[in-house]
Amino acid sequence: MNIDLQKIFTDTPGKKTCVHLNNCGSSLMPQSVLDAQVDHLKLEAAIGGYEAANKRRDAIEGVYDSVARLINCHRDEVAVVENATVGWAMAFYAIPFKAGDRILTVEAEYASNYVAYLQLAKQKGVEITVIPSDDKGQTSLCALEELIDDRVKLISVTHVPTNSGLVNPVEAIGAIARKHNILYLVDACQSAGQMPLDVEKIQCDILTATARKFLRGPRGVGFLYVRSSILDQLHPPMIDLYSASWTSPNEYVLRPDARRFENWENNYAAKLGLGACVDYALEVGLDNIKTRIDELASHLRENLAKIKRVKLHTFGAAHNAPQQCGIVTFSIDDIKSLDAVTEILSRGVNVSGSSPSSTLIDATNNNLPILIRSSVHYFNDHDEIDKFLQIIKDIAAS
Amino acid sequence: MNIDLQKIFTDTPGKKTCVHLNNCGSSLMPQSVLDAQVDHLKLEAAIGGYEAANKRRDAIEGVYDSVARLINCHRDEVAVVENATVGWAMAFYAIPFKAGDRILTVEAEYASNYVAYLQLAKQKGVEITVIPSDDKGQTSLCALEELIDDRVKLISVTHVPTNSGLVNPVEAIGAIARKHNILYLVDACQSAGQMPLDVEKIQCDILTATARKFLRGPRGVGFLYVRSSILDQLHPPMIDLYSASWTSPNEYVLRPDARRFENWENNYAAKLGLGACVDYALEVGLDNIKTRIDELASHLRENLAKIKRVKLHTFGAAHNAPQQCGIVTFSIDDIKSLDAVTEILSRGVNVSGSSPSSTLIDATNNNLPILIRSSVHYFNDHDEIDKFLQIIKDIAAS
Repeated sequence: MNIDLQKIFTDTPGKKTCVHLNNCGSSLMPQSVLDAQVDHLKLEAAIGGYEAANKRRDAIEGVYDSVARLINCHRDEVAVVENATVGWAMAFYAIPFKAGDRILTVEAEYASNYVAYLQLAKQKGVEITVIPSDDKGQTSLCALEELIDDRVKLISVTHVPTNSGLVNPVEAIGAIARKHNILYLVDACQSAGQMPLDVEKIQCDILTATARKFLRGPRGVGFLYVRSSILDQLHPPMIDLYSASWTSPNEYVLRPDARRFENWENNYAAKLGLGACVDYALEVGLDNIKTRIDELASHLRENLAKIKRVKLHTFGAAHNAPQQCGIVTFSIDDIKSLDAVTEILSRGVNVSGSSPSSTLIDATNNNLPILIRSSVHYFNDHDEIDKFLQIIKDIAAS
Repeated sequence: MNIDLQKIFTDTPGKKTCVHLNNCGSSLMPQSVLDAQVDHLKLEAAIGGYEAANKRRDAIEGVYDSVARLINCHRDEVAVVENATVGWAMAFYAIPFKAGDRILTVEAEYASNYVAYLQLAKQKGVEITVIPSDDKGQTSLCALEELIDDRVKLISVTHVPTNSGLVNPVEAIGAIARKHNILYLVDACQSAGQMPLDVEKIQCDILTATARKFLRGPRGVGFLYVRSSILDQLHPPMIDLYSASWTSPNEYVLRPDARRFENWENNYAAKLGLGACVDYALEVGLDNIKTRIDELASHLRENLAKIKRVKLHTFGAAHNAPQQCGIVTFSIDDIKSLDAVTEILSRGVNVSGSSPSSTLIDATNNNLPILIRSSVHYFNDHDEIDKFLQIIKDIAAS
C-alpha cells in the first residue's frame, strides 16, 4: 500500500470536527471536492449560470473521462445523473419488459430497486425471483445457474448491500449472465469508491453509482454506465430536448450515447464535484483504498466481536465469507439500536441505523432487527475506531 | 412599486462583473442564495452529508412552505425536483393515457415537452393537437373551445415560451379546462419569478418551474405542483424507497403527498438555495417584480424597434398583445444571430441565441430564424439596457 495518510488527513476538513463512520451513508468530502463546488457556485453568481458552464465546459466534459477511467469504459457510455437511484431507474425502466419476463435479483437487494420490480410486476406482469444466498451469505452461483431459463430478461444485483459487509460475486455472476446472453445490471452504489470496479471484468451491461458515499463526492449527483452495444435495446422512460433532438414537427431522434438518459439541466457544481471526487479516488488508488478499508474494517469487526452482548450482522464475518467490505453492522442485546445510535452520535461519532425495510427480503429471511451501521473509509484511523469501540463497550456495559 | 433598488443591486454580486440580460437562461443569484448553498456544502464537508441534512431539517422542510406561498398551494402539493423538466416529466408520464387520448398544446410549446408528447404518440397512440394562436400571438381561446371533445385527456401549456415575450392566457385556459373537467398542466419555467403565479387562479392541476431562471436560484433544482385532488389519478413513472414504502415482500404503498414524484437523494445545498431564492422573490414582491420588468422590457423593446435592420420577434410587441414579459427576442437583417451574440458577449453583455428547434412548431409556422434572446430582470437598470442598445446599434450599423 502506497498511500500518504498525512496528506489525506489534511485534505479532509471534516476530520477535525467529527469521527465519521457513516461513509456508506454520505462520506466526508476532501477539500478539493468542496472547492470544486463552491468555486463554481461563486462563478455562477459572478457571471451567470450559463456563462459559467460555458467557461468551464472542458472541466465539465472531463467529468465523463474521469468516470470512464474509474470503471474502465468509454466516456460515451457514461451518463451523469441526479443520483444513483435516478440512473438506476432511467436504465431499468428503459428495458422493454413484457408479461412473463423474469427478473433475477439478490436476497439483500435494496428497497428502491425492489419496489421498482414490484411496480413492473403490477404494471406489466413481470416475475421477480430472488436468488438464494449460499452458506457464506453471498448470492449463490449454483442457485443462479439453476434459475436461468428463456424467460429471464434481467439479472439485477446489488454489489454491496446497504446493511452488511457482504460483497456479492459480481464478476462470477457476470460470467453467467454473459454466457446466457442476459441483460445484467449492477447497483454499485456502495462499492464505487471503496474497491476497484471494472465493467469489463464484471461484464455488466448497466452499472450505477452515487458520488456521496465511498466516492466522497457531493450529495445529489451520481452516474450511470450503459454498455454501448445494448444502448439501442433500451427506451428511455422519459425524454427531453437533450436526450432527444426534435428534428421535424412529428419526429425526434435519441442521442447516440448514454447521455440519452440525462436531461438538459444540471447542477454543474455537483457535477464538477463528482469529477473532483473521482479524480481524488483515482489518485489515492482504488487498490490502496480497498486495502486500507479492509484493514480498518477487520480491526473494527474483530474488536466488536469481543464485546459482550454485541452481535455482528455483517454476513461476511458471520459466515466466514471470502470478501468483506467497509460496512460493519451489528446490534447489542437488549439495547434498541436507534437508542444506541443516538448515544453514539452524542459522543461525536457519526453512524446511522439500518432499517429492515431497506432490505426487506434479507431482513425477513434472516429475522434482522434495526441495526447499528458503521462504515470505515481510508481516511479513518485506529484512534477513531478505538474511540468508537469504547463507546460501544460503554453502551453494552450499561 | 415599493422596491429598494439600491439594496437589490448590493445583494447581487454579479452586477459588478457583467451586464446580465440572460435572465431567462439562468439569472444572477442574490448573495443570500449563494450563501445558502455554500454554507450547506461547508457544513456537509465539516460534519457529513446526512448529519448536515439532519441539522438543517427545519430549513429544508421550510423550502416546501416557501414554494407553497409562492404559488398559493398547500405544502403537501409540492415536490422539489432536480429541475423543471424532471418535474414536468414525472407528472406528465404519470398520466394514464390510452390510445386515442388527445393532448392539446400550444404553438410555442417547448421542445422538451413536445418530444415527450411524440414519445407517447409513438408508444401509446395518443394524438397531439396544437391549439392555433390568435392574431395577437397568444393561444386562441376560441380555437381551444372548438377543439375540445371527449377524447381530450390533457391541456398542456407553456405559460411563457422560451423564444418571445408572449404570455399565454393561462387563467382563461384554466377556466375552460375546469369547465370540461380536463387535466391541465402549466409549464411555468419562464414565468415563475417574473410575475405572480397562483394555482387557484390558474386552476391548473400540475405546474412546474425551475429555480435558475427568473427565480434567481441555483442550477439543477426546480419544483412540481400537483393538486392534491388529482394525485391518485397519476402513477409515478418510476418509484424508489422515498416515493413508495416497501411494506411487505410483495407490496409497496405510495407516499400520500406530491413527494411521491421525488426520490430519496437530493442536492440539499441546491434545495436550500431554492428556498432562499423563493424567499427573496417573495420579499421583493412578485407584483413589484412584474412592474419593474415590464418597465425595463418596454424600454428595451421600444428602443430596439427604432434601430434600423432590427426585427423584433417578440410576438407580444409584433401583434400588439395585451401582455408581454421580460423576454425580448429579435434578429438583425443580414447578420447571423449567433455572430451577433458572440459580439454582444465579447462586449460584456450576457445574452443567448434561441434556436428554432426549441419551439419547432412556432418556428416553422412563423418561419423563425435563430434569434438573439435578451431578457431583463428587476435588478437590471437603464444604464445596462442602454449599453446593450448601443452594442446593437453598432452591430446593425456594421
